[in-house]
Amino acid sequence: MAGNSFGSIFKLTTFGESHGEAIGGVIDGCPAGLKLDFDAIEAEMNRRKPGQSAIVTQRKEPDTVQFLSGIFEGITTGTPIGFIIANANQKSKDYSHIKDTYRPSHADYTYDKKYGIRDHRGGGRSSARETACRVAAGAIAKQLLKEIKITAYVSGVGELKLKKDYSELDFSEIEKNPVRCADPAMAVQMETYIKEIRKQGDTVGGMVTCVIQNVPAGLGEPVFDKLHAELGKAMLSINAVKGFEYGSGFKGTQLKGSQHNDLFNEDGSTTTNHSGGIQGGISNGADIYFSVAFKPVATLMQKQETINSDGEKVEMEGKGRHDPCVVPRAVPIVEAMAALVLADFWLLNKNAKL
Amino acid sequence: MAGNSFGSIFKLTTFGESHGEAIGGVIDGCPAGLKLDFDAIEAEMNRRKPGQSAIVTQRKEPDTVQFLSGIFEGITTGTPIGFIIANANQKSKDYSHIKDTYRPSHADYTYDKKYGIRDHRGGGRSSARETACRVAAGAIAKQLLKEIKITAYVSGVGELKLKKDYSELDFSEIEKNPVRCADPAMAVQMETYIKEIRKQGDTVGGMVTCVIQNVPAGLGEPVFDKLHAELGKAMLSINAVKGFEYGSGFKGTQLKGSQHNDLFNEDGSTTTNHSGGIQGGISNGADIYFSVAFKPVATLMQKQETINSDGEKVEMEGKGRHDPCVVPRAVPIVEAMAALVLADFWLLNKNAKL
Amino acid sequence: MAGNSFGSIFKLTTFGESHGEAIGGVIDGCPAGLKLDFDAIEAEMNRRKPGQSAIVTQRKEPDTVQFLSGIFEGITTGTPIGFIIANANQKSKDYSHIKDTYRPSHADYTYDKKYGIRDHRGGGRSSARETACRVAAGAIAKQLLKEIKITAYVSGVGELKLKKDYSELDFSEIEKNPVRCADPAMAVQMETYIKEIRKQGDTVGGMVTCVIQNVPAGLGEPVFDKLHAELGKAMLSINAVKGFEYGSGFKGTQLKGSQHNDLFNEDGSTTTNHSGGIQGGISNGADIYFSVAFKPVATLMQKQETINSDGEKVEMEGKGRHDPCVVPRAVPIVEAMAALVLADFWLLNKNAKL
Amino acid sequence: MAGNSFGSIFKLTTFGESHGEAIGGVIDGCPAGLKLDFDAIEAEMNRRKPGQSAIVTQRKEPDTVQFLSGIFEGITTGTPIGFIIANANQKSKDYSHIKDTYRPSHADYTYDKKYGIRDHRGGGRSSARETACRVAAGAIAKQLLKEIKITAYVSGVGELKLKKDYSELDFSEIEKNPVRCADPAMAVQMETYIKEIRKQGDTVGGMVTCVIQNVPAGLGEPVFDKLHAELGKAMLSINAVKGFEYGSGFKGTQLKGSQHNDLFNEDGSTTTNHSGGIQGGISNGADIYFSVAFKPVATLMQKQETINSDGEKVEMEGKGRHDPCVVPRAVPIVEAMAALVLADFWLLNKNAKL
Repeated sequence: MAGNSFGSIFKLTTFGESHGEAIGGVIDGCPAGLKLDFDAIEAEMNRRKPGQSAIVTQRKEPDTVQFLSGIFEGITTGTPIGFIIANANQKSKDYSHIKDTYRPSHADYTYDKKYGIRDHRGGGRSSARETACRVAAGAIAKQLLKEIKITAYVSGVGELKLKKDYSELDFSEIEKNPVRCADPAMAVQMETYIKEIRKQGDTVGGMVTCVIQNVPAGLGEPVFDKLHAELGKAMLSINAVKGFEYGSGFKGTQLKGSQHNDLFNEDGSTTTNHSGGIQGGISNGADIYFSVAFKPVATLMQKQETINSDGEKVEMEGKGRHDPCVVPRAVPIVEAMAALVLADFWLLNKNAKL
Repeated sequence: MAGNSFGSIFKLTTFGESHGEAIGGVIDGCPAGLKLDFDAIEAEMNRRKPGQSAIVTQRKEPDTVQFLSGIFEGITTGTPIGFIIANANQKSKDYSHIKDTYRPSHADYTYDKKYGIRDHRGGGRSSARETACRVAAGAIAKQLLKEIKITAYVSGVGELKLKKDYSELDFSEIEKNPVRCADPAMAVQMETYIKEIRKQGDTVGGMVTCVIQNVPAGLGEPVFDKLHAELGKAMLSINAVKGFEYGSGFKGTQLKGSQHNDLFNEDGSTTTNHSGGIQGGISNGADIYFSVAFKPVATLMQKQETINSDGEKVEMEGKGRHDPCVVPRAVPIVEAMAALVLADFWLLNKNAKL
Repeated sequence: MAGNSFGSIFKLTTFGESHGEAIGGVIDGCPAGLKLDFDAIEAEMNRRKPGQSAIVTQRKEPDTVQFLSGIFEGITTGTPIGFIIANANQKSKDYSHIKDTYRPSHADYTYDKKYGIRDHRGGGRSSARETACRVAAGAIAKQLLKEIKITAYVSGVGELKLKKDYSELDFSEIEKNPVRCADPAMAVQMETYIKEIRKQGDTVGGMVTCVIQNVPAGLGEPVFDKLHAELGKAMLSINAVKGFEYGSGFKGTQLKGSQHNDLFNEDGSTTTNHSGGIQGGISNGADIYFSVAFKPVATLMQKQETINSDGEKVEMEGKGRHDPCVVPRAVPIVEAMAALVLADFWLLNKNAKL
Repeated sequence: MAGNSFGSIFKLTTFGESHGEAIGGVIDGCPAGLKLDFDAIEAEMNRRKPGQSAIVTQRKEPDTVQFLSGIFEGITTGTPIGFIIANANQKSKDYSHIKDTYRPSHADYTYDKKYGIRDHRGGGRSSARETACRVAAGAIAKQLLKEIKITAYVSGVGELKLKKDYSELDFSEIEKNPVRCADPAMAVQMETYIKEIRKQGDTVGGMVTCVIQNVPAGLGEPVFDKLHAELGKAMLSINAVKGFEYGSGFKGTQLKGSQHNDLFNEDGSTTTNHSGGIQGGISNGADIYFSVAFKPVATLMQKQETINSDGEKVEMEGKGRHDPCVVPRAVPIVEAMAALVLADFWLLNKNAKL
């Protein structure tokens, strides 16, 4: 209701502000008997954490997940998995300059309007730091899903667009470059561009594409909880996201039905996949793929005019260590949210028929 | 859980198959004391119903909403509003040709995989007929929202794109043309194109843009239930939708932060609105606007090869009366879903602060 | 949220007022593939319906359930099962005398305080007529549960208490007498007493005991959704219920642990069953049993002083056809609610472990 | 779904096992702007904590609540309030004797059946230690409810029953004796009896009665979420509870309607209160009162025969420090759960009417 839970059977609830003592979460509904690979969880956390490369924020946050419950001798017990991630690097003094200031295109103003009070330090609850909890939970969801393979990569940075279809790409390239672009040549261009933008004290938007493979047919719940509707909500709930499309997406609107329909092979597979692996909100067994649009980071390392809470014009300039472009670090977040959606539908589907 | 409910406080649950006796729904959580305008509800139903113009399906369905409860002497009582819409024009025999056939890019195959059984007549539960219930409920939500004004219009048909910003358009034009395009000249082009497509026995995709005005600041629930995330889910849950973007959307990914940030005026409004009226998932009082991508209708009036449930190749051809392009009739559905989202967040927000 | 839904996976939502056009409901989450026995559903409806014997209200309501969706050729399809039950015998004029009157110990006053408006005819939404929908849904839940056997019977009418343990009773006696008491001799006494009470224009309270057999171990969800907590809520949600106890119940409070503990046999069964088949909120495989307290019906066929909505003293007398004692007709309602609880936990439990 | 959340708008999710690193919870939906009294929270924790008197377990657990989020400068911010309570006194070695043993009338057996794995140390998730989180959250709920006064007291220990009506009692006596009985003379008897029972290495059951005063009319949601149904569920979810009754309760079943009906005064109050402050599931403004039955603690300080997980007979004896009777410490838990129910309905009710 108050918006801090996601999922129905496999349900994540998160809490925590950027500069409080800790952020954390509770995963309720993870079946008992799952032997956890903690190294794999840590690996996901490291893909999201600040300071991992030269093109992301240089903040140092170890982002170690401390599990408090729901796991016994390395195996899930069916009881809620509570966890916290300490905010080791709080440095609250850095944020006194925005205490009464509404940063442009941030949530400062809207939180104030909604709640009448806010923890201004580092954006408080609206900070993308919260997504660390999503990555932790998503890492467990991935382990639950086993054969289902979720792969995201950067497909756009500013005007640089990766035009290749995902089937033409070698996913093993993704983690080899700091941009997490699946195409090495494009990765170099993107990296160069991000560095240039950072030098300008500016930021830039980008795109992430995600492919989900080995999905069994039947996942997703009509009518309102269609698989792509939940994926869409999941992605749009990530900070800075402005759009979502799956399968043929926005380009599909320009096609005729005779071009767009995916014709069946005799085994139930299809000759094309404009559907993006989903028909009527339910997976059909083909690859699911979708793209997510991220706006440029709003915190700039240059002067901007804005207002304070008294409605007076003030000038401000970003301090501290911010990302010039979020998409490299958004890749594991997109995967985590996709994993949460899939895990939930996978469990739900056990009751679809007798 | 099973996907047939939408909303938390103002909650719609729908039921019904295309060719069962009736479809219907229950609206739970509508506050008591709302005097209903039944003519306004009927007007919304008429905007969605088949047969309303030469460019939509010529099926005749009166789509009269019969309210069974929750209303006393024209006023809501706070108890659940149950309603049914008779399926007057069932003609089930029309559908015997698809009984064992999986129509390309329909939900026949996936429903079979998920449930092991399906009501094949007219698509059963996967038919867009279900959206009539959404329009009925949305019409009540609109009345609850009073000053909040929700306006959708067709902004694309195939490759014909309405390039104008919504602020340049005269919304009073929308209902004057059968396409529901806000630009009269473009409307004529679109209408001509749809007729041409229909003659070919083909179909075409399109886009709907929606603008929500007079929204108070503070609506939307962080973190997972951001206002735009729920709007996105709501839109993606509509049949044939492939994408959603709000504010600067996919184009915003190409901008720099210094171009994209919306600078504040002293009154808290902003000089630009790339944010689309939402910051951090919460409305800021500016206009909310978003676009929705619809794929071309999958039922063609031409021969297509497909398979039956035994995996044998068969040939089929659409029969009956189908839409060559869904977007004209999708306009009231988009508005209805937006109204459901807004009504729910408006009620939820009453408990945001003491 | 607004209180008209019950269950999580197997979820019933009901709507309708006593004297509206119809009452009805939606069952969402019933798995596909359940072949329904409609005669069995009707039989349950007949156990609840008015006019079935000389000791219940003589109203005539056929209470036929009309299924509108979710069933195809007699088999559930996994889509929501919508149904309505017409209010054939509305006679609204009967209720004009209570339009502005608050009947003692009814919900007239509280509905007015809560909603500011109410459908006064026959109690509107607060009427026990609503329970017909529960019985219809419960009848389907029973069919889903197959081997799990749910049996309720009257165990008290006024001061007449059936002291025997359920294991001493012959359940086949229950439906042989109009009171639905499992002990024939006590049934005669109870029937005589109810008739006497009715002659006085008075009413009397009573008790229903319910036994659930063949329950697999493992049903119920700690911590808040313990099996007995949901059973308790289910029972307390039935009109006129004032108390719930399971296993040793209130008497168990007087025992010592050394008397109360159920010792294990080697097969995991226990030598006694003070636990009532539930340990830590989870079924242990033993019989579940509980008792439900019903207050006397508030509508009397004698003069009572009360107030109207202006706070003026008025005199009123029950008209129409009311039950002198609800427990005979409550028996199928108790069973239905127990079935809804069990069905939901049975489905939920499929995801307890890998 | 998985049972670890309670409430809809004001929602508590708890996690943690008795002997894990910490237990904790998340309160989502507490409105912003509530200035918290942390001393009052600590005072509630102290009422529940072990070692507080000679008649409760002598374990030492400081039970300090560490708030991690959702509070800024002492005031709630509307974002989720995450908290943990360290398990300072773990002593896991104490529990090796029950690793493979199913203790009689505990949840060991059922957890094993449900999950196939369990954290056996101190009962793991099934331990009443979890209720510390409820008391912490309830303490905040109480502060939200302000004028609504919730008072519980011990009304029975074994066969010792406090027969006086709550209106005859002086609530200021409750905290003056270690039993938390509102009647000083009875408190002495109860204390003596509990000490005797403890000497025997035995335990005994008891009763808690709770009174809620200054409740506005209108709280509670028909039909399934009646105020007393949620209170009943809340109480039955507390460890060791076997029964719940409100208002006239089980005794009310013996009355006639002419005796039981509460007649109205001209101001809408009633001359009697058999209703227990609730009509049709909605508060009427009168005092709400109910009683809760607790079974004797299952852990005895004497030898008992039981089985291990291989189905072999073994002998066991309780070790460590256990309560001979839970009711003195259950008093604040009953109040906390009542506060959670009331807070949720109070917030929900803001949307009952326009």
